[in-house]
Amino acid sequence: MKQIYLDYAATTPVAPEVKAAMEPYFTEKFGNPSSLYAWGREARGALDEAREKVAAALGSLPDEIVFTSGATESNNLALKGIAFLLKKSFPNKNLHIITTAIEHHSVLHVAEYLEKFGISVTYVPVSKEGIVDPQKVADALRDETILISLMYANNEIGTIQPIAEVSEIIKEEREKRKESGNKIPIFFHTDAVQAAQYLNLNVKDLGVDLLSLTGHKFYAPKGVGILYKSSSVPILAQQQGGGHERNLRAGTENVPYIVGLAEALEKAQGQREQESKRLTVLRDKLISGILEEIPDVFVNGSRQNRLPNNVNICVKRIEGEGMLLKLDNLGIACSTGSACTSAKLEPSHVLLAIGVPKEIAHGSLRFTLGKDTKDEDIDYVLEVLPKVVEELRAFSPVR
Amino acid sequence: MKQIYLDYAATTPVAPEVKAAMEPYFTEKFGNPSSLYAWGREARGALDEAREKVAAALGSLPDEIVFTSGATESNNLALKGIAFLLKKSFPNKNLHIITTAIEHHSVLHVAEYLEKFGISVTYVPVSKEGIVDPQKVADALRDETILISLMYANNEIGTIQPIAEVSEIIKEEREKRKESGNKIPIFFHTDAVQAAQYLNLNVKDLGVDLLSLTGHKFYAPKGVGILYKSSSVPILAQQQGGGHERNLRAGTENVPYIVGLAEALEKAQGQREQESKRLTVLRDKLISGILEEIPDVFVNGSRQNRLPNNVNICVKRIEGEGMLLKLDNLGIACSTGSACTSAKLEPSHVLLAIGVPKEIAHGSLRFTLGKDTKDEDIDYVLEVLPKVVEELRAFSPVR
Repeated sequence: MKQIYLDYAATTPVAPEVKAAMEPYFTEKFGNPSSLYAWGREARGALDEAREKVAAALGSLPDEIVFTSGATESNNLALKGIAFLLKKSFPNKNLHIITTAIEHHSVLHVAEYLEKFGISVTYVPVSKEGIVDPQKVADALRDETILISLMYANNEIGTIQPIAEVSEIIKEEREKRKESGNKIPIFFHTDAVQAAQYLNLNVKDLGVDLLSLTGHKFYAPKGVGILYKSSSVPILAQQQGGGHERNLRAGTENVPYIVGLAEALEKAQGQREQESKRLTVLRDKLISGILEEIPDVFVNGSRQNRLPNNVNICVKRIEGEGMLLKLDNLGIACSTGSACTSAKLEPSHVLLAIGVPKEIAHGSLRFTLGKDTKDEDIDYVLEVLPKVVEELRAFSPVR
Repeated sequence: MKQIYLDYAATTPVAPEVKAAMEPYFTEKFGNPSSLYAWGREARGALDEAREKVAAALGSLPDEIVFTSGATESNNLALKGIAFLLKKSFPNKNLHIITTAIEHHSVLHVAEYLEKFGISVTYVPVSKEGIVDPQKVADALRDETILISLMYANNEIGTIQPIAEVSEIIKEEREKRKESGNKIPIFFHTDAVQAAQYLNLNVKDLGVDLLSLTGHKFYAPKGVGILYKSSSVPILAQQQGGGHERNLRAGTENVPYIVGLAEALEKAQGQREQESKRLTVLRDKLISGILEEIPDVFVNGSRQNRLPNNVNICVKRIEGEGMLLKLDNLGIACSTGSACTSAKLEPSHVLLAIGVPKEIAHGSLRFTLGKDTKDEDIDYVLEVLPKVVEELRAFSPVR
């Protein structure tokens, strides 16, 4: 049977060259980077080199890179680290965070957590295409706004957000505060998890102060991530212990995964333009084919500002889970939305935020393409998906 | 040149069978455990199996195991998870934690962090041998004590603490509270990081409610750990996001490492009696040899209640770091104490707590034995160490 993996936004296999790069650090070069003898110095050297590689890919200083256990930790550290520190510095202010309705749960649930600690949060809505209007961010600004967290590209519908434009708004706000004598700082964080393989991650070009990544979305393993934090941003560590990661993240460093992550990121950023071109063709073929072959189907998100590997549709009158399981039987792996919430029965908060009615949101299906996706895989999906939809609709109680 | 690694308490190499167990989960069986299709179910199955293996090794239920990024995270989650939750339930009480002066920094620094949030902490002293007197724990109890955190075996001096006896004290306190109508619960946590390879980890035998472990101390990789949490203990998650680990720890699960950790723990607990016997002989040979061959040396910690793999000495009139570097040149890896703090210049807080004067504490040296340690390695240390000490003392300004 065919085995076609089309859920690269959920996770990716570790690339052979990444695995090869990690290999020596498990059993041979296994030292603790904090140890002073040869084994330790060897591990420390590997860590330093990985940090430099990551910094080069992001256009930052090596000391602005914090290695974490993944993007969930990075997002937690960014939001809580800033909020709890500034709460100490400005105990009597009604501090405020701006984010959007379509963020990943590791931002949204942290924002909700911070609300319990007296931080106010504005969840800026998005357009029907799933894109944030920078003017709405500007309108939401308050004198006490300390942080804007806006994802670079959405994990479900693939929409790319206007990061650089929002950055300009924040720069203007900083100028205004300087003039008015408002001492409260304001920072800009982006969850760039889905962007690493396809978009420019240069933090200067983006104009962000903090940026989160996780290895397993670009062919490094699950369980290792990055928080880029500009040296001008003060944050409070969220995990206490030894003084690892310049006192920002305690815990013995995961040397093999960090080495693999750096290798994978360098490669992802090196190939991104070429791979984006290749996948855009396949993505558009899949979208056009679906729209032509299946009645009562529409595409979620923007057709222009969209990740090159993302296809997200709603098929009216049937449920996404039914399609997913039938496609699984035919050897195709895809999802109804975010893997992180696939156990829940609620429809996607992202689809609801772009105005998809609840009953239709249940009929969502996401295909995300990746390095092993070939033209014939798209042909196969276009061959079987119309039949799957027809079969399920024949049994559907809704006509 | 010889290459003798004697710092197994700092970190261990990944065992070949552990590496083999992880291998398929990087590139082949790479699915996200939250995904519903075949790749996802395969990863979920591996995770479930690993959880069952760990639960069997600890004598717990599988649902009482939380996989984390390591012991630092486990300790943070245990202490903060309980303290912040109970602070909500008892906002007007002066909640209290008991720990000891010789805990790892991932407990001590979390305790200090909690003090800033209004939690009181008692740091119980230890004897000259580095052992906590259960009576002193009993004396420190208050009506508002919510948690006792006592490490199972010390990472620097290898002393084994009377966990089961302290557990009895807590059971009595619970009875007392039941009778007096005190509704504040009290829990018992142990940081068992150094114990996994040599001591019984059965949580029922130990009588603990929470227990922390990290893979890289027993031949699994760095960056994966466990928090055992009895189903009767309520805690507040410290990392928000997707609903992973039964809403206790968000973040895509590190499937390869979790599989490796389970394999390694099963093996460690299966071999612990045999390996303890073997290493006790080598440990005692090393201690006796050092005491015979080198004047003005003493052993830190207890000779009886001591990990089978731990040797910790103080050599008067010279510095540990000088010995370490000279031994490194001779192919021997050892440490002055905890790797997690080796970049700091302060003497060990553990040695100060057992009453070693500051200037002598600077002369500490720790050898920790492990699976590849052989009789001839001990011979080699006993051959070169006396000469190293003699050379350094010849240059020492202190006579």
